[in-house]
Amino acid sequence: MNGLRLSPSDAWRASEHVDADRLLASVDTLASFGARGDGGVDRPALSAVDLDARRHLIDRARALGCTVSTDACANLFFHRAGTENLAPVMTGSHIDTQPTGGKLDGCYGVLAGIECLAALADAGIRTRRPLEVVVWTNEEGTRFTPGAMGSSAFVEPSRLAAYLDATDAAGVTLREALDAQRRAFPDLPLRDHAATPAHAFVELHIEQGPLLENADVPLGVVTGIQGVRWYALHCDGVAAHAGTTPMNVRRDAMTLAIALRAEIDALAHALGGDDTRITFGRWSVSPNAINTIPSAVTFSVDFRHPDAAVLDAFDRQIADCALRRRARVEPLFSHAPVRFDATVLATLDAACAALDARALRLTSGAFHDAMYVARHCPTAMLFVPSRDGISHNPAEFTGPHHLAMGARALAHCVTQLCND
Amino acid sequence: MNGLRLSPSDAWRASEHVDADRLLASVDTLASFGARGDGGVDRPALSAVDLDARRHLIDRARALGCTVSTDACANLFFHRAGTENLAPVMTGSHIDTQPTGGKLDGCYGVLAGIECLAALADAGIRTRRPLEVVVWTNEEGTRFTPGAMGSSAFVEPSRLAAYLDATDAAGVTLREALDAQRRAFPDLPLRDHAATPAHAFVELHIEQGPLLENADVPLGVVTGIQGVRWYALHCDGVAAHAGTTPMNVRRDAMTLAIALRAEIDALAHALGGDDTRITFGRWSVSPNAINTIPSAVTFSVDFRHPDAAVLDAFDRQIADCALRRRARVEPLFSHAPVRFDATVLATLDAACAALDARALRLTSGAFHDAMYVARHCPTAMLFVPSRDGISHNPAEFTGPHHLAMGARALAHCVTQLCND
Repeated sequence: MNGLRLSPSDAWRASEHVDADRLLASVDTLASFGARGDGGVDRPALSAVDLDARRHLIDRARALGCTVSTDACANLFFHRAGTENLAPVMTGSHIDTQPTGGKLDGCYGVLAGIECLAALADAGIRTRRPLEVVVWTNEEGTRFTPGAMGSSAFVEPSRLAAYLDATDAAGVTLREALDAQRRAFPDLPLRDHAATPAHAFVELHIEQGPLLENADVPLGVVTGIQGVRWYALHCDGVAAHAGTTPMNVRRDAMTLAIALRAEIDALAHALGGDDTRITFGRWSVSPNAINTIPSAVTFSVDFRHPDAAVLDAFDRQIADCALRRRARVEPLFSHAPVRFDATVLATLDAACAALDARALRLTSGAFHDAMYVARHCPTAMLFVPSRDGISHNPAEFTGPHHLAMGARALAHCVTQLCND
Repeated sequence: MNGLRLSPSDAWRASEHVDADRLLASVDTLASFGARGDGGVDRPALSAVDLDARRHLIDRARALGCTVSTDACANLFFHRAGTENLAPVMTGSHIDTQPTGGKLDGCYGVLAGIECLAALADAGIRTRRPLEVVVWTNEEGTRFTPGAMGSSAFVEPSRLAAYLDATDAAGVTLREALDAQRRAFPDLPLRDHAATPAHAFVELHIEQGPLLENADVPLGVVTGIQGVRWYALHCDGVAAHAGTTPMNVRRDAMTLAIALRAEIDALAHALGGDDTRITFGRWSVSPNAINTIPSAVTFSVDFRHPDAAVLDAFDRQIADCALRRRARVEPLFSHAPVRFDATVLATLDAACAALDARALRLTSGAFHDAMYVARHCPTAMLFVPSRDGISHNPAEFTGPHHLAMGARALAHCVTQLCND
């Protein structure tokens, strides 16, 4: 990434050849695979409709002159050759959805990548480096847990062994689902990703939050992804009869849990200030009967912050909190904050500037495949606004002009990176 | 109940003939039907083990010279004839248990009743009125909802039609379960309860609370059963992404529910003072995911108080509370406070005094079959202490001397009532 050799004319011409109508039509076409009656999409990773959608995208990529390959975790790579045999620039996202998903989460990044391939072809541009559009497998984590399986196994192939026995709600293992893709596409060559580190990765995505809309800005240059800690807090009380047990001798586990929630909430805000995101989303109460005092409550804590030091301090202090109140804290998941690559960010800034598009720099509150790919190669993300910040919902929506603007900025950026 | 014609010698002799060893052995024998490995009992109403237990009790009653009958809700009546054809005195309780029940809840009242039959036989006493020991069906409400089906349908036979289609967890209806008892005991005559109002009903039960133990008193004369209101409170928020949604724009349904819980708790204590029992036992959170802000929370309120005016005021004010916080309150169940009959209470007081047993007058915090039977005939209850107030638990325990004392007081009381 040293000594940027910009080819502004290629980047500009690529962005000019982005065809908004073609892009928008491609969003609707992809959304027809697993379409819900309410306008949303339900397309579990590697399901029959997902394989149909993948076939559709493979056909499009081949029609654009790409070679298509896959890997051990069923990620798809659409490869547009460069003039030199160099490490490729990658872009893309995922096409699996939440059960009540919209048309854009993930899909938009893949389709904008394919639109870049089409724009380069229409403009007759041969870039120096290859451009690859990637479809990462099972980002949502809805069919198989955890999410971001494809991107994390791409970056760290040893993870795959632990994923293979994950089962979906019907008892199908990931191993079986991967076999299904191999049977569906027996001609796809297996890519040996360890041998091909990428030059850069850029992921375009809807924001899934309200910041760009509230700031009335069409593009967000994403400087990183906030870190996260997930915990389960276990509180014990004593089950007793709601009618016969005097108030002063009760030990109600829910009363304890609510006090602990308040304390953890205050702790999170004290440590994290305005950047704090704290959520208590999952609750389990035993015996959960109207006329019995709760004997046990477990609740989840999702704490996110861009500053690793704040996350570490929270880690220590939530343990103290739990100890003081005789609760038990169980760490469930953690991921350090990710800071994206300065050069890729500068290239995105330059793309926004070249298009005269106002852009905000912001941190992603959600996880993305880019969180893992950032360990593999220089990485950054670009956001477009989400109406009312709504996502994982059939009402997910981004205005057509914003979708087109995002794809143009992506085309500008990846073309510039390809000519590095 | 006018003009008490006491036969103190009969009552005294009956209580003297209560055999503590026989009573305690009968507790263990009954507990062998549906015994759990941990010393508790799991005997769902009208299950195979319950029918076996009923057969055992029917055999005992017949061996004691009783005639046995049943009714449309499978209640069992063990009838010991009196010297005159008068309305009977009834005692008894239930033998169905919670899934993790103990040996005493309900069973003790039935077995102490049978011990009274045995004591009267041993003493050679013929009472003026008949004495009947009753086994009420499905008091716990665990297999079929609601509880106290047998006693409530006895008092108000029109209720049965609404109960017949209740199903257990395996899909078996009450109608089918009642047929099973009829097939098991085809020779039992059906009693026409409407034609036979009782002279009085006395239910002996473990306290299931800590008051007697804390006061170190062996007997509790129960003056009534506190009234109860059950509600579901429904709170709505907006589901949103835990990572991307700033704190200040969130509408977390759990935050709302917790604030509402605190307000209702304060309201209950302000209205009810020291007699207040308020429990928030059942919680349901949607979508109940770690990384999604709760969009809907429903929680239950169980409010009990001996004063009907307090319950009515609570009813009005909880509605105001919910309205202010834009929650929805759904009434689930209510029962007015029950005040037991003064003459039966005086007879219990006299029995305790005759036995030189200290007794406390108290209100029952739990429901019992007597709550319904009180509408049918003069009714009262007698309690013995529960160790640590524990019930609905294999650890349920009452000392042998207290169990014997309760049975003696019951024998004294019902013999006296039979000679009214």
